[in-house]
Amino acid sequence: MIPADHPRYRSLVIRERMAAFAREGIVSWEGLTAHGRGEAFDYLIGERTTDSARIAERTAAAMLLCARHPVISINGNTAALAAPAIAALQRACGALVEVNLFHRTEERVRQIEALLRDAGVTVFSGTAEQLLPLSHDRAWCRREGMYAADLVLVPLEDGDRCEALVRMGKQVIAIDLNPLSRTARTATLTVVDELTRALPAITDACTTLTSREQAQLLDSLDNHYLLKKAMDEITARLSHALD
Amino acid sequence: MIPADHPRYRSLVIRERMAAFAREGIVSWEGLTAHGRGEAFDYLIGERTTDSARIAERTAAAMLLCARHPVISINGNTAALAAPAIAALQRACGALVEVNLFHRTEERVRQIEALLRDAGVTVFSGTAEQLLPLSHDRAWCRREGMYAADLVLVPLEDGDRCEALVRMGKQVIAIDLNPLSRTARTATLTVVDELTRALPAITDACTTLTSREQAQLLDSLDNHYLLKKAMDEITARLSHALD
Repeated sequence: MIPADHPRYRSLVIRERMAAFAREGIVSWEGLTAHGRGEAFDYLIGERTTDSARIAERTAAAMLLCARHPVISINGNTAALAAPAIAALQRACGALVEVNLFHRTEERVRQIEALLRDAGVTVFSGTAEQLLPLSHDRAWCRREGMYAADLVLVPLEDGDRCEALVRMGKQVIAIDLNPLSRTARTATLTVVDELTRALPAITDACTTLTSREQAQLLDSLDNHYLLKKAMDEITARLSHALD
Repeated sequence: MIPADHPRYRSLVIRERMAAFAREGIVSWEGLTAHGRGEAFDYLIGERTTDSARIAERTAAAMLLCARHPVISINGNTAALAAPAIAALQRACGALVEVNLFHRTEERVRQIEALLRDAGVTVFSGTAEQLLPLSHDRAWCRREGMYAADLVLVPLEDGDRCEALVRMGKQVIAIDLNPLSRTARTATLTVVDELTRALPAITDACTTLTSREQAQLLDSLDNHYLLKKAMDEITARLSHALD
């Protein structure tokens, strides 16, 4: 039991929630560590949506709305942290939602699909094949889902799969709190923000952006510039943190 | 199975090792998340011992050698990552080694003590009492161990217990990769370095520092200065990382 007066109470409660999902098998044990990395980077950006992240979120919405066949790829951590927010985003942009796991078992896929459905997501399921050029479980996806997509939103992704999707000619939107990661640098667009802040912001932009704003955001998309701005925001904050 | 060509191979292997220790009960599920935070901060300092950390490690050695009754406090993550390095440090500085857990059960204490003994540590055990002014399991320690210590080395500590120990008038050495954490700011001395690099460096200094060097290091101890240097080293690296 975490004492309510603990200064990191919220973070510790989410951590315990993730541990509970790990006990159920939804979150992998390695996924708990990945969650910790996310906690650390969020701490460094001040646990807030920065100005550059806000632009990235609006740009992500424009890309999703303009895509022909957008797919949202879900892993255990994403489902555990944000299943209801995924449902809302799907309603706003009409994307397919497909489960793809690094530590893949049929049982885990079923559990995560059930969690998503309980939250109101329409899950694109069916038979997976090893279609992506990768050496591990992440190669599995569905022919009419991610394989056919022109745009894939990959929250909390590993660098390998992001690279593979980009090499296949797809547009990739990553949500990654580390602006230096391979995923962040490889993606077409990277949202440097925490998942449960980023998804509602993208959903909100999906319902409010005008066609003209969408075109402007797509015209001015420059991921390297956005990553540099994100890094500037982090270092500006850190350099005065101990004054 | 992690492919050997994965660019984060070493980090992923240690992560799997920590997950295996979690399966055994040595590492708590929340401890896996804490390990992930450590990974992120180590990534940001470039997975190397910085100049300021080197000074902190030499100062830690001087403090351990000059203490009357030094105690090294061990939690699950520390035992899992560095049991042999703890044994070597104990041989070099003569400190008591005592297990203190946030998520405490008698069974976990026994398991971690066994892991330490297998690595060559002389473990100070016996009956624990609720002696520290804290609201959770961390209050437990041993009267002749940490309670009587004039100096406590707390690797991977939480902020609460660090504050409680300092309030009790003890000198506290923390090993913490986050220079902004409450632990880092509260400790008498903070080593901003990864545990398995920090412990051997402290051990090495214990065997090589002259009495005169020890006195000089203790005279010039300024934790706030060291933390600011650590932060400068991080931000200097980050500000050019995306050029």
